[in-house]
Amino acid sequence: MVHRVAVIGAGPSGLASMKACLDEGMLPTCFESSDDMGGLWRFKEVSEPNRASIYRSLTINISKEMMCYSDFPIPADYPNYMHHSKILTYFRMYAEHFKLLQHIRFKTSVKNIKQRPDFSHSGEWEVVTESIDGQQESHVFDAVICCSGHYTYPHLPLKDFTGIETFEGKYFHSWDYKGPEDMSGKRVVVIGIGNSGSDIAVESSRVAEQVYMSTRRGTWIIRQVSDNGLPVDMQYNTRFVHILFQLLPIKVINWIGENKVNAMYDHSMYGLKPKHRLFSQIPVINDDLPFKILSGSVILKPNVKEIRGSTVVFDDGSTVEKVDTIVFSTGYNYDFPYMPTIMPQAEIQSPAFKPGHDEEKVTLLIFLSTCAFFGCVRSYIVSKLTPLQVDFVSYMDDIAGEIGARPSLLWLFFTDYPLFQRVLWGPVTAYQYRLMGPGKWEGARRAIFTQFDRMFQPLKTRKVEEASVFGRLTKLSLIVMAGGAAVYYVHARNPTTIPALLSKLRPNRLNVLQ
Amino acid sequence: MVHRVAVIGAGPSGLASMKACLDEGMLPTCFESSDDMGGLWRFKEVSEPNRASIYRSLTINISKEMMCYSDFPIPADYPNYMHHSKILTYFRMYAEHFKLLQHIRFKTSVKNIKQRPDFSHSGEWEVVTESIDGQQESHVFDAVICCSGHYTYPHLPLKDFTGIETFEGKYFHSWDYKGPEDMSGKRVVVIGIGNSGSDIAVESSRVAEQVYMSTRRGTWIIRQVSDNGLPVDMQYNTRFVHILFQLLPIKVINWIGENKVNAMYDHSMYGLKPKHRLFSQIPVINDDLPFKILSGSVILKPNVKEIRGSTVVFDDGSTVEKVDTIVFSTGYNYDFPYMPTIMPQAEIQSPAFKPGHDEEKVTLLIFLSTCAFFGCVRSYIVSKLTPLQVDFVSYMDDIAGEIGARPSLLWLFFTDYPLFQRVLWGPVTAYQYRLMGPGKWEGARRAIFTQFDRMFQPLKTRKVEEASVFGRLTKLSLIVMAGGAAVYYVHARNPTTIPALLSKLRPNRLNVLQ
Repeated sequence: MVHRVAVIGAGPSGLASMKACLDEGMLPTCFESSDDMGGLWRFKEVSEPNRASIYRSLTINISKEMMCYSDFPIPADYPNYMHHSKILTYFRMYAEHFKLLQHIRFKTSVKNIKQRPDFSHSGEWEVVTESIDGQQESHVFDAVICCSGHYTYPHLPLKDFTGIETFEGKYFHSWDYKGPEDMSGKRVVVIGIGNSGSDIAVESSRVAEQVYMSTRRGTWIIRQVSDNGLPVDMQYNTRFVHILFQLLPIKVINWIGENKVNAMYDHSMYGLKPKHRLFSQIPVINDDLPFKILSGSVILKPNVKEIRGSTVVFDDGSTVEKVDTIVFSTGYNYDFPYMPTIMPQAEIQSPAFKPGHDEEKVTLLIFLSTCAFFGCVRSYIVSKLTPLQVDFVSYMDDIAGEIGARPSLLWLFFTDYPLFQRVLWGPVTAYQYRLMGPGKWEGARRAIFTQFDRMFQPLKTRKVEEASVFGRLTKLSLIVMAGGAAVYYVHARNPTTIPALLSKLRPNRLNVLQ
Repeated sequence: MVHRVAVIGAGPSGLASMKACLDEGMLPTCFESSDDMGGLWRFKEVSEPNRASIYRSLTINISKEMMCYSDFPIPADYPNYMHHSKILTYFRMYAEHFKLLQHIRFKTSVKNIKQRPDFSHSGEWEVVTESIDGQQESHVFDAVICCSGHYTYPHLPLKDFTGIETFEGKYFHSWDYKGPEDMSGKRVVVIGIGNSGSDIAVESSRVAEQVYMSTRRGTWIIRQVSDNGLPVDMQYNTRFVHILFQLLPIKVINWIGENKVNAMYDHSMYGLKPKHRLFSQIPVINDDLPFKILSGSVILKPNVKEIRGSTVVFDDGSTVEKVDTIVFSTGYNYDFPYMPTIMPQAEIQSPAFKPGHDEEKVTLLIFLSTCAFFGCVRSYIVSKLTPLQVDFVSYMDDIAGEIGARPSLLWLFFTDYPLFQRVLWGPVTAYQYRLMGPGKWEGARRAIFTQFDRMFQPLKTRKVEEASVFGRLTKLSLIVMAGGAAVYYVHARNPTTIPALLSKLRPNRLNVLQ
């Protein structure tokens, strides 16, 4: 019997779910409330209620090789950090290539889902949908995959902002932000220093008279343009780094990481330093904010204490007057309104989360018998201290391990050493989970071998005269250092060895060394 | 007899010239063609003919302690990289503090200056001015200081762009650029990768459909946010670095510098790498461009070969079609139209300059008997290879040396060691030339001691919990490394010394070491 699967939402997770159903010979039906696919990435000039919203300038902060589908590489000439319009184009290509569009019922929202009376042995679900003209319909499915996203319901904790009712300017949630046009010449306070808050503060500061950014906890900020200009995730999200994280104490890892981040700009000096260590919370990714702070366009402030008319008072007693605009970049609430209330609502707050502030809620990927939630997990490099943020590699390995698609380093070492090297030292791109087991894709090996080619490709628009000397010199200095260390090691163990060796090579120079 | 001095232009150089005249008991009269002081920094929404022009978002690329007048520090709470509006405010404060405004004749332009018949023994000049209502006036001065600037006359080499007359879109010089509004949704080609070209490309790319940036030669790009977040000039424009530049071969310096710059982003990979070495041309200062290249908003292209309708053809044969806008960021011509033609016009092109491209012309500070040109020199760190760009420290030292105001390191070493340390290791701020000799300012020493306080001050807007561990850890690792080196050195010279020393300290552990 063919399994009938309901997929709720035609965003990136919904598309992948449909494609996976088709691969397994199941029959997916995707219900999409809007008139188009793409979910979050469908940019609209005005935010639509009960839908995620992005701003006009949004560029993703994951590089293309790290964000792409496991068996459908992003075109080589696409940039490494893609604007939302390019991302949507890529998802369209995916949907068309795998013929997914015919399985989507647009303008149809899911009103509720419930277990059928015989659920205990059939596992079946009843799904009630409503078309745009109000017509309701009931369907039966063998399984349901919820891909409705978690940036839909803005968290606007006004009650935590004493005096907000006296505020004389305009305020709104970052969900409503589209661009900086309205900020021209204004005095703006952005509350919250997450990725959205930072982007909005930076962008507004280009036209505003002054932007203030209030953060209770501070944050670590990393750059997308990492060492030598590589995308930061291509550089550090490797299996080797993952192994180091398993082997070294977390204190040491934090120490190394914070040193590196502070070498870019001292987080204390910039007023950014949080109480938490680098790897215990997801950092903010923003390349522009440091210069905006140094040039005074964005001024950091502590937590908001209260609001009095057009004056914002902060916890340290300082005030900002004549504020025109307050942007609440205070995150999102989770909600799956179509879920029966008897089911565990997957609303779980991060342990560090306090209402009224900049942290986003996180939730878990939950399998409830034949109902699954996709696309809700935020991946991060260390999970030990924050159980709701998962370690990307461990998480991927665990899930892949369940079905036998986890790449085996040992097997690769003996059967395909060049591939082993790339899997160990290179970035953990999703292709790695298409190398073996169910869902194996013949193109996966090649995709891994060419992942850096696709990274370099969009940069090759102006030919330069010669290769950079950088790589060579770094290698050279490493070799010299390693050589020096080896010489010292040998010399320390037996001080006569090296002079003796040298005397064989250059007998006439021996006296210099003794 | 009181010397009467004509100052042409009430920009930053004009103001300083007036103030210097007053200090020396001379009587300055400043002729300013516009209705306000500030020169270049008087922002206007529409560029005015025969005047310099800046864009709305312009932030200076010199940090506040490096750009400020030698005896008038910028207020401590001002940001390190100032927006043009703040810079103008600072110049106003200067003009008011030193009571300069009463010496400025606004709305009065200088039509021509010529030597008086008895110039050979009197040194006098006849200056003909014209007020805004067309009334001409003739004046006699003992000296003339030309401070009319060198960003006044756009260099628009259309004849070098074959087919520009067929171009169907809009083109203009960067002098006309005010902001990115008109670029919204457009396809833009920026020609020239100087500071203006880079700023315009970056800013346009936030709203344009696509920005292409054509450069024949490429460039080195440095960040304003330097190591640990310090302003790059505060970090590297030190007397110690200057001495290193004198001592080390230029090849070594370039090698070190290029390694450092490429570690931020590999200039070959990014298509930026020029043929010239790092320190042989002034680099571009831009913190945003690398990410714009990596995210594909700005695509680098080689030199423009020709233009065909709305298509731009490049030297490598590639084309960009449907171009809406071309911005010529091709620099400026020098002109002092009020100068008599028999005098050597100070128009000298940089040796590397080729018309039609992104390099700016440079000229010399010239003293012609009693006529001087101010504010035309571009300071750079190495002068050996590019005689028209001066080494900032050598140049300042030379000029100061002429009048005996050059700080003597030797004198400071013996008389004021704490100050010596700051003058040697710290940034070469202009206060150093107010320490001794004519023009000595009592506040100079204190200004040097507090220059980093003024740098840190504007960043102290959010208190962080504890001092960064970075400084301590760096010191610790340096101490460990130095200790290790010392141990190795002693050990290599006499392998018994260290075990012997240790045996005195911890006799029971000696066996471990042997």
